[in-house]
Amino acid sequence: MLQMNKPMQAGIGKSALLLVLANSHELEEADTRVKESGFSFCLGKTGSMDLQKVVSAIETAAKRNELVNETLYREMHALYHAILEALEGVTRGQIMLGDVMRTVGLRFSIVRGRPYENKAEGEWIAVALYGTIGAPIKGLEHETTGLGINHI
Amino acid sequence: MLQMNKPMQAGIGKSALLLVLANSHELEEADTRVKESGFSFCLGKTGSMDLQKVVSAIETAAKRNELVNETLYREMHALYHAILEALEGVTRGQIMLGDVMRTVGLRFSIVRGRPYENKAEGEWIAVALYGTIGAPIKGLEHETTGLGINHI
Amino acid sequence: MLQMNKPMQAGIGKSALLLVLANSHELEEADTRVKESGFSFCLGKTGSMDLQKVVSAIETAAKRNELVNETLYREMHALYHAILEALEGVTRGQIMLGDVMRTVGLRFSIVRGRPYENKAEGEWIAVALYGTIGAPIKGLEHETTGLGINHI
Amino acid sequence: MLQMNKPMQAGIGKSALLLVLANSHELEEADTRVKESGFSFCLGKTGSMDLQKVVSAIETAAKRNELVNETLYREMHALYHAILEALEGVTRGQIMLGDVMRTVGLRFSIVRGRPYENKAEGEWIAVALYGTIGAPIKGLEHETTGLGINHI
Amino acid sequence: MLQMNKPMQAGIGKSALLLVLANSHELEEADTRVKESGFSFCLGKTGSMDLQKVVSAIETAAKRNELVNETLYREMHALYHAILEALEGVTRGQIMLGDVMRTVGLRFSIVRGRPYENKAEGEWIAVALYGTIGAPIKGLEHETTGLGINHI
Amino acid sequence: MLQMNKPMQAGIGKSALLLVLANSHELEEADTRVKESGFSFCLGKTGSMDLQKVVSAIETAAKRNELVNETLYREMHALYHAILEALEGVTRGQIMLGDVMRTVGLRFSIVRGRPYENKAEGEWIAVALYGTIGAPIKGLEHETTGLGINHI
Ligand SMILES: [Mg+2]
Ligand SMILES: [Mg+2]
Ligand SMILES: [Mg+2]
Ligand SMILES: [Mg+2]
Ligand SMILES: [Mg+2]
Ligand SMILES: [Mg+2]
Repeated sequence: MLQMNKPMQAGIGKSALLLVLANSHELEEADTRVKESGFSFCLGKTGSMDLQKVVSAIETAAKRNELVNETLYREMHALYHAILEALEGVTRGQIMLGDVMRTVGLRFSIVRGRPYENKAEGEWIAVALYGTIGAPIKGLEHETTGLGINHI
Repeated sequence: MLQMNKPMQAGIGKSALLLVLANSHELEEADTRVKESGFSFCLGKTGSMDLQKVVSAIETAAKRNELVNETLYREMHALYHAILEALEGVTRGQIMLGDVMRTVGLRFSIVRGRPYENKAEGEWIAVALYGTIGAPIKGLEHETTGLGINHI
Repeated sequence: MLQMNKPMQAGIGKSALLLVLANSHELEEADTRVKESGFSFCLGKTGSMDLQKVVSAIETAAKRNELVNETLYREMHALYHAILEALEGVTRGQIMLGDVMRTVGLRFSIVRGRPYENKAEGEWIAVALYGTIGAPIKGLEHETTGLGINHI
Repeated sequence: MLQMNKPMQAGIGKSALLLVLANSHELEEADTRVKESGFSFCLGKTGSMDLQKVVSAIETAAKRNELVNETLYREMHALYHAILEALEGVTRGQIMLGDVMRTVGLRFSIVRGRPYENKAEGEWIAVALYGTIGAPIKGLEHETTGLGINHI
Repeated sequence: MLQMNKPMQAGIGKSALLLVLANSHELEEADTRVKESGFSFCLGKTGSMDLQKVVSAIETAAKRNELVNETLYREMHALYHAILEALEGVTRGQIMLGDVMRTVGLRFSIVRGRPYENKAEGEWIAVALYGTIGAPIKGLEHETTGLGINHI
Repeated sequence: MLQMNKPMQAGIGKSALLLVLANSHELEEADTRVKESGFSFCLGKTGSMDLQKVVSAIETAAKRNELVNETLYREMHALYHAILEALEGVTRGQIMLGDVMRTVGLRFSIVRGRPYENKAEGEWIAVALYGTIGAPIKGLEHETTGLGINHI
């Protein structure tokens, strides 16, 4: 097995992924770690055959948790493209669910903060998704993930 | 913050993601955990503007670590599609690197095992990628991830 | 600023774009210019979260304005692929609207004529789209455009 | 005209294509040929503007004809990806029907068996589609085909 | 097994597919059948990891066999889009070969003629591809097909 | 012909499109108009079968004309995604040139400024492309366009 000598810094994307992957007893640790990085975040769940509901659930959570200013298109635009990019990872080729007879059950995390040392790089946003995708029949599913990152 | 009351079982995809996200001091723990699940795995790194080299590095690692039987097309086919699906998450829309003037620096994990309780479900393979994508200039990059899962 | 010494000829695509971009007081000039090229055209508007309505609005306008012969599949086929290509520019990656929680407000132009000097090249059709794309909330949108060209 | 000196062996994909292309009087011959190869198969028809119905019709036929074991996700997963790949050929770019104002009338074949000499390669599944795609108006359509192959 | 009571007419696409699927001893029959439909056609082979060579081989064959008039962009445009559509079926998601470490060995047919009863529908062109796709290692490959159709 | 009663405001995207469409004698007018909107911009040309060169030409022009701060990834990231989105319009389905045997000759404009009344919306960037795409043979080409817009 290859040795990983140079661990990468915990970035905003890694933070988002660790949050979305954390079991309930790991959440506290992940929570502390992400906050130490100075990042804000929220977590949520969504499940549907309807992609629109998935997008909407993530947008709503981001607004309610004040991770984005919903009156600024600039911020909603940044969030929206991060969501779409994360969905590319989840759907792997065609951003479609019910139309191709599949459904998802996803946890999502949205993380906002300053991941670069240079302060001028400003704020960025990461959307991580993790859960299952498969036929609309319990058990006929496998895991899936996606990560979208954008400047905000 | 939403409470995550029903932690998902550590699946093969989650195992692959945790391995690829682990810092060097976390690797031992991740290693133990994945082996306890009865999964085999390997880890590696690859960085290039040339997508072919990325695919090749993952395939070579899988063969060398005997996670796939390279004389069986069945196994190479399962691995190949898992790699392509993981790359969809990394590239988010068009599986291209140098042609659109971007480069990646990725860690990858390949995990093989039986993620379903029903023994008849047999073996599955997961390929997880995590690292950075961006311009071929140091620092002009953000994180990216991808996960591909297939029956093998 | 770079000098543009060799202006391109006003082609069928440029005509379609100028028509769709023209303000009401510019329309007359654009109208004259396009007709001088011997092109036929029509203009319309469509707005929806439902892609089918967008495609349908353009097809209907083309038929009503007799830019295509709706009883000939040959002509409808040429138009259809020009529309799809224009929508690629508008949606930039996945031809989807409501499913990914976005809506469009578009003007469209359809131009038909002989853009090549060689008469044997026959007739071609151009579909240009220009307007806004964004969340289904007023103001949360930016501009978008697309152009599809086909032989007919 | 080029001479085809080295005919390819009738593989599982070719079998699926010949079945789906066969007229009623050719079906018996195709049927015999495919069975001689030791392959199992079924044939069906589906027509819709709704992609979900197309996917569902193929999955249902595969289950009813016992070409897949519907209680095993492993088998349903193999079938599902073969269907999606076949639909890529049918839709050529964006796996969409009604949303982009088009409909299909398709015959499908599903073939399962051992196409490789090496017994260790095990079973594979092929899904072939052939029919018409076009506007939801009789006659405004052309032919289309697709083939998806997966290990099962 | 479902009965196919209403066999479809042998269209231009079906002709192209049957030609490309024919073994050497079946070619004569296919040849006769296609010519009886009044279609012109050619057959060829191409194999490469380089997509450009595949496109080029098909274009060259079409020109040499005078299926298209290479001095007319109108005809070359019709052919080109038919080739691209056929390649969507072969590559199923991303039109890429070597970049994603795969190679093809393909037979192709190009058929030109009048497939519709209504003479005003004029000429159409079909490009069919059939062969194998897989790793650049003998035997690690499965079958693939694609069909593109366009008015010309 | 439909009347366009409510002309849209000249946005940043429309400005970019008008610049890229302007003939040499129209450039002065377009130049004045765009500057009156308070936008900064540059114009350039690029032609290649190599997509990397196209991306690179646009990035280089943006840096040289100081439309972006090349030491800030935030700005380069905004520009990069605007370029990719514009290329989706130009390539309409697969962001590829030489690999699918086609070449482009493009003019490009890059416009930066504040397109929204609300000052808090900050700066945005638009990349417009217009030119020809086709076979690498003079004359075998048609027009193409693309527009990408991003917050910066
Ligand atoms: Mg990015
Ligand atoms: Mg799957
Ligand atoms: Mg074209
Ligand atoms: Mg395959
Ligand atoms: Mg078509
Ligand atoms: Mg946008």
